[in-house]
Amino acid sequence: MLRIGMLTSGGDCQALNAAMRGVVKTLFTSDTDVEIYGFLEGYKGLIYSNFKMLTGADFSGILTKGGTILGSSRTPFKTIKDPDENGVDKVEAMKQNYYKLKLDCLVILGGNGTHKTANLLRTEGLNVVTLPKTIDNDLWGTDMTFGFQSAVDVATAAIDCIHTTAASHGRIFIVEVMGHKVGYLTLNAGMAGGADIILIPEIPYDIDQVCKAIERRHKNGAGFTIIAIAEGAISKEDAALSKKDYKKKLEKSPFPSVSYELADQIIKKTGYDVRVTVPGHTQRGGSPCPYDRVFASRLGAEAGRLILNGEYGFMVGYRNREIVKVPLEDVAGKLKMLEKDALIIQEAKLIGISFGD
Amino acid sequence: MLRIGMLTSGGDCQALNAAMRGVVKTLFTSDTDVEIYGFLEGYKGLIYSNFKMLTGADFSGILTKGGTILGSSRTPFKTIKDPDENGVDKVEAMKQNYYKLKLDCLVILGGNGTHKTANLLRTEGLNVVTLPKTIDNDLWGTDMTFGFQSAVDVATAAIDCIHTTAASHGRIFIVEVMGHKVGYLTLNAGMAGGADIILIPEIPYDIDQVCKAIERRHKNGAGFTIIAIAEGAISKEDAALSKKDYKKKLEKSPFPSVSYELADQIIKKTGYDVRVTVPGHTQRGGSPCPYDRVFASRLGAEAGRLILNGEYGFMVGYRNREIVKVPLEDVAGKLKMLEKDALIIQEAKLIGISFGD
Amino acid sequence: MLRIGMLTSGGDCQALNAAMRGVVKTLFTSDTDVEIYGFLEGYKGLIYSNFKMLTGADFSGILTKGGTILGSSRTPFKTIKDPDENGVDKVEAMKQNYYKLKLDCLVILGGNGTHKTANLLRTEGLNVVTLPKTIDNDLWGTDMTFGFQSAVDVATAAIDCIHTTAASHGRIFIVEVMGHKVGYLTLNAGMAGGADIILIPEIPYDIDQVCKAIERRHKNGAGFTIIAIAEGAISKEDAALSKKDYKKKLEKSPFPSVSYELADQIIKKTGYDVRVTVPGHTQRGGSPCPYDRVFASRLGAEAGRLILNGEYGFMVGYRNREIVKVPLEDVAGKLKMLEKDALIIQEAKLIGISFGD
Amino acid sequence: MLRIGMLTSGGDCQALNAAMRGVVKTLFTSDTDVEIYGFLEGYKGLIYSNFKMLTGADFSGILTKGGTILGSSRTPFKTIKDPDENGVDKVEAMKQNYYKLKLDCLVILGGNGTHKTANLLRTEGLNVVTLPKTIDNDLWGTDMTFGFQSAVDVATAAIDCIHTTAASHGRIFIVEVMGHKVGYLTLNAGMAGGADIILIPEIPYDIDQVCKAIERRHKNGAGFTIIAIAEGAISKEDAALSKKDYKKKLEKSPFPSVSYELADQIIKKTGYDVRVTVPGHTQRGGSPCPYDRVFASRLGAEAGRLILNGEYGFMVGYRNREIVKVPLEDVAGKLKMLEKDALIIQEAKLIGISFGD
Repeated sequence: MLRIGMLTSGGDCQALNAAMRGVVKTLFTSDTDVEIYGFLEGYKGLIYSNFKMLTGADFSGILTKGGTILGSSRTPFKTIKDPDENGVDKVEAMKQNYYKLKLDCLVILGGNGTHKTANLLRTEGLNVVTLPKTIDNDLWGTDMTFGFQSAVDVATAAIDCIHTTAASHGRIFIVEVMGHKVGYLTLNAGMAGGADIILIPEIPYDIDQVCKAIERRHKNGAGFTIIAIAEGAISKEDAALSKKDYKKKLEKSPFPSVSYELADQIIKKTGYDVRVTVPGHTQRGGSPCPYDRVFASRLGAEAGRLILNGEYGFMVGYRNREIVKVPLEDVAGKLKMLEKDALIIQEAKLIGISFGD
Repeated sequence: MLRIGMLTSGGDCQALNAAMRGVVKTLFTSDTDVEIYGFLEGYKGLIYSNFKMLTGADFSGILTKGGTILGSSRTPFKTIKDPDENGVDKVEAMKQNYYKLKLDCLVILGGNGTHKTANLLRTEGLNVVTLPKTIDNDLWGTDMTFGFQSAVDVATAAIDCIHTTAASHGRIFIVEVMGHKVGYLTLNAGMAGGADIILIPEIPYDIDQVCKAIERRHKNGAGFTIIAIAEGAISKEDAALSKKDYKKKLEKSPFPSVSYELADQIIKKTGYDVRVTVPGHTQRGGSPCPYDRVFASRLGAEAGRLILNGEYGFMVGYRNREIVKVPLEDVAGKLKMLEKDALIIQEAKLIGISFGD
Repeated sequence: MLRIGMLTSGGDCQALNAAMRGVVKTLFTSDTDVEIYGFLEGYKGLIYSNFKMLTGADFSGILTKGGTILGSSRTPFKTIKDPDENGVDKVEAMKQNYYKLKLDCLVILGGNGTHKTANLLRTEGLNVVTLPKTIDNDLWGTDMTFGFQSAVDVATAAIDCIHTTAASHGRIFIVEVMGHKVGYLTLNAGMAGGADIILIPEIPYDIDQVCKAIERRHKNGAGFTIIAIAEGAISKEDAALSKKDYKKKLEKSPFPSVSYELADQIIKKTGYDVRVTVPGHTQRGGSPCPYDRVFASRLGAEAGRLILNGEYGFMVGYRNREIVKVPLEDVAGKLKMLEKDALIIQEAKLIGISFGD
Repeated sequence: MLRIGMLTSGGDCQALNAAMRGVVKTLFTSDTDVEIYGFLEGYKGLIYSNFKMLTGADFSGILTKGGTILGSSRTPFKTIKDPDENGVDKVEAMKQNYYKLKLDCLVILGGNGTHKTANLLRTEGLNVVTLPKTIDNDLWGTDMTFGFQSAVDVATAAIDCIHTTAASHGRIFIVEVMGHKVGYLTLNAGMAGGADIILIPEIPYDIDQVCKAIERRHKNGAGFTIIAIAEGAISKEDAALSKKDYKKKLEKSPFPSVSYELADQIIKKTGYDVRVTVPGHTQRGGSPCPYDRVFASRLGAEAGRLILNGEYGFMVGYRNREIVKVPLEDVAGKLKMLEKDALIIQEAKLIGISFGD
């Protein structure tokens, strides 16, 4: 008999359900008896013993369903060791609930923050297997995370819609894509949507270069320009500020986000008509795309295999087209960055996309 | 030989191309020789004689294409009689270009403002046939406008994506749908997306009723709430202000749009986590939905028939499932409103949707 | 206390769940206590007392879900009065189960066949309210049925995909759309997909006219042709046969369906490369389109209102943009046909579509 | 000055236009003067000197367009060395046209057959760069081909639609996915669509195992089963036949394709209601998915870079997440097969999918 706890933590994304289904189908297909304890709303469920027993029926029909049947919440790693408002030691509470339920293993689905806490639980002696979920594709140790391609699809669909409007009205359109620290999502959606300018956190932009790229298009007869910008994109000027000063600047800014500031700058410098679109949370939701469904199912299956083999302490990742197990201690706290001169960025530049640098 | 001028004016929407294709295919399929003059960027093209001759090839493959191959611009009716910055009399210029090209008729696609100018041209002696385009479905004289259903589809897709995220995180989500004066689009997208609360300009909302509806859901175990709100929705308090005072209030408002103010109010009154999503201009773009493609093709065909019959001065509309011709003088300047107690609103209330009233 | 039985019968389609949700939400939102008995697999569930009690939770999240949570089956009206293989009188069994459960009303969702049986139950004294479901839009008494627009969307998406392939290879492509007796679906999907030739049961086609239309396109430089054909389309020759002889012919035919025979004829007469695509049952499935979700919700709400008012014996229909109640006796056994010279067919011809006549 | 010839050959697929746009944008963005000669309908255009000069405008807006702006045709490698019906030596003709136009390089987009001919032209002294296009993902030398993921998306959408119908009616549904020799597409679409049984050419199936898998599901309470089968799937019995005998068997078969035979067998052995759906050529068409748009753009960019560097004789491929150049002589004539015990197949089995073996 295996007793498995499962939870999803952090911002939700597509294919969380598909991944959990992969794990559970693997366990239920095996000859081993298995009990699944689903903790609700991320680590909170584990801390406060809020869970429900899950059967095969709970996982039926969820392959194509966005969100997570377990709910999620953000439980910041920074404060995980602090007692809660009632003085409860959160780490200790998680351990106690793990032992009380006689769990053999925790399956944890999440992104960077989630993996730090997962690794902490591992060092505290719990058996943990994790799955890499994030629309940002910024988890170290895996070439790909599930949720990413689905988010690319949603963001691209938004740019596709904007394209016809931009062309009809001869406007500059700024589409703000999710991603505070890493530009994978913006880069891919931008390339897929045929954006002319792509601005990402990794490459601070020069507003004059951005305006030049716009003017160049107008000279060549294209009356409109599409700019895909990541939430965390930053101008060269701002990048030169200290972190503290930049934070201060953001707080004082009259603009709801970077794209509105960029719009303001372009209008002032070029006089063109500029509009901003923010697809926002739609990028995290809806039915996962087929790529993510297959990918998450595969990762889930391999997580199930690890559990059946009694191999714990790993994230199931994907490297060079093989599913691999990556030691949690190697993953926790590291970010996978997009290199400034990555092949894909070179290629984007080759086909004429400006990064404003 | 028929010489037809054609232009698209106002905010763009889906199926403009489909409608023009319908007109042109009808004319080209007939035995009459036809020349098509496409004026670029709306009335501007007619004023400044900016046009191109169009052949069958220009209309091939555009049935499924969003935007307008002619480009569009907003040429406000309010200022149409004023000379432009170079002293050009715009109405006179349009007439002269019409006569210079020896046009038999103008085909004009647009919404409310466009129809006012079209009617003006009619009273000035030009032959005009119009087609009702707007995502707002607020044109008087027709049960339906093309662009509307496609916009419903885009807005609904956004709500669908938000649904899974809202449910996973137990949040209140506000989705701001286009529509400054009329709530058709918000109402339909809201019903299609399963919104719990729908706020439209026609029914000023009481913030306390909105919060009560949220609390009721929470009591019943639903941890999340979806609110679809029209751009032009208004609270009861604000509706009690004079137009002037309300405008002043909006100008001073720290919020980019009504939904951010609503979010702020809900957070203050309930303490729940609230997020705002604004699909914005995506609602005007992308490939028209099959409904709009058929509908716009039909209207275009009937416009072609009118032209071949020499019947001018009409908008081609749709009433009681029949395509009808509506005298332009009846259409111009009238808005089709959504009644507060329309059947569809009664039905939305029957299934438990709150309008905050 | 109201006790409501509910069942879905006949071929499934999109928005069945949305419609049932509309009924149930209306009943649960009212002040009346309500119990819902869901009979499984259509009339079979009523005959053999196979049902489950349904709560609000069963209807949560199903607005966007295709299929029917109750399951369906075809129970032919022709044999409804015959005893089953165990000698059970089916009509009597349905009545007994209705009375045993002390039902106040049956809510029945279905198409033509379903309505005949529903009307029979009405004449037997049961309280019945029905909802018009069919992808064929051929139910008498209502301008529209739910399921239709969603099926149009799926069939159009198939034609859209075929379009690019047909154009790239310069081929004739035949897309077979569902519809044995009525051509609404084929006509709408064909117009939305930009089909060049549309063949429907209402207008027997002349193979020579079909080939002429193809040749005309080739002469005009279009290297490909898209033909949308209804399952029940028929050639002029075959239409001249007696029903019996035509049936015999079909039985002996080496072709799996009409489109393959048509392909064979075109190849023989023109020598062009012809391909057949049959989207088949995909047209009945998947998530309902926003139009159908709103429409089915509205019909469901009005069915709920009828029940709360104690008004029985009606189908809830849609006429001239109003939701209306239609006496079941008027609906049963009648088919809504598409007239050969309907406005929409005239318009399709105006834009150059050939019907092969 | 560079003179580039370009052609697309073989069955069309999505993202051909995106790939060509990538090449051309790279060339036009460079400082080199470039002329593009687009040969129409594949090698035929090169043989018979049927081409058009292409400018930047021809490549504008085609990123999202399915099909190929150059048209395509199948020119079998087997007969490429045979003279045509007028005695024209096809290889010689291609060489002459290449030299007559003073081309510096041919860019050829295609699959297996196309690459054999491309390699032949290379050995004949022409400069060739190729791009790997096929929905089958069976090209040797690259981990991925463009067109594949888009085809997966279309096939998955079909299975998604079928799912709701299958569940509502408790039926067995067979969905026939493209792929004569290789099962990648069926495997991925099957996994993404939640198929219960996946039958591919690489793993001959035992009809009894297939029926057992169906019965097992029924015993477990799932009233329906989805089978994804590749066009080229084969039973164990048939796999034991000689190629010649199997061919003979197929010719005599009363079934239009393998899925109909499979349906027949399942009906006979289990008595269940079985339906077949064949999405067919829809899998090759429609707008490319975002993944393919990015991927094809990247490959195109690298092809452009090779040309600018004067590096010829390569296919641009993708290996271990890097874009690589693969010598054409290594690619031609080799097929990339799916191994029976590939990780992805193991994982599919882990989550309970039956392969009928």
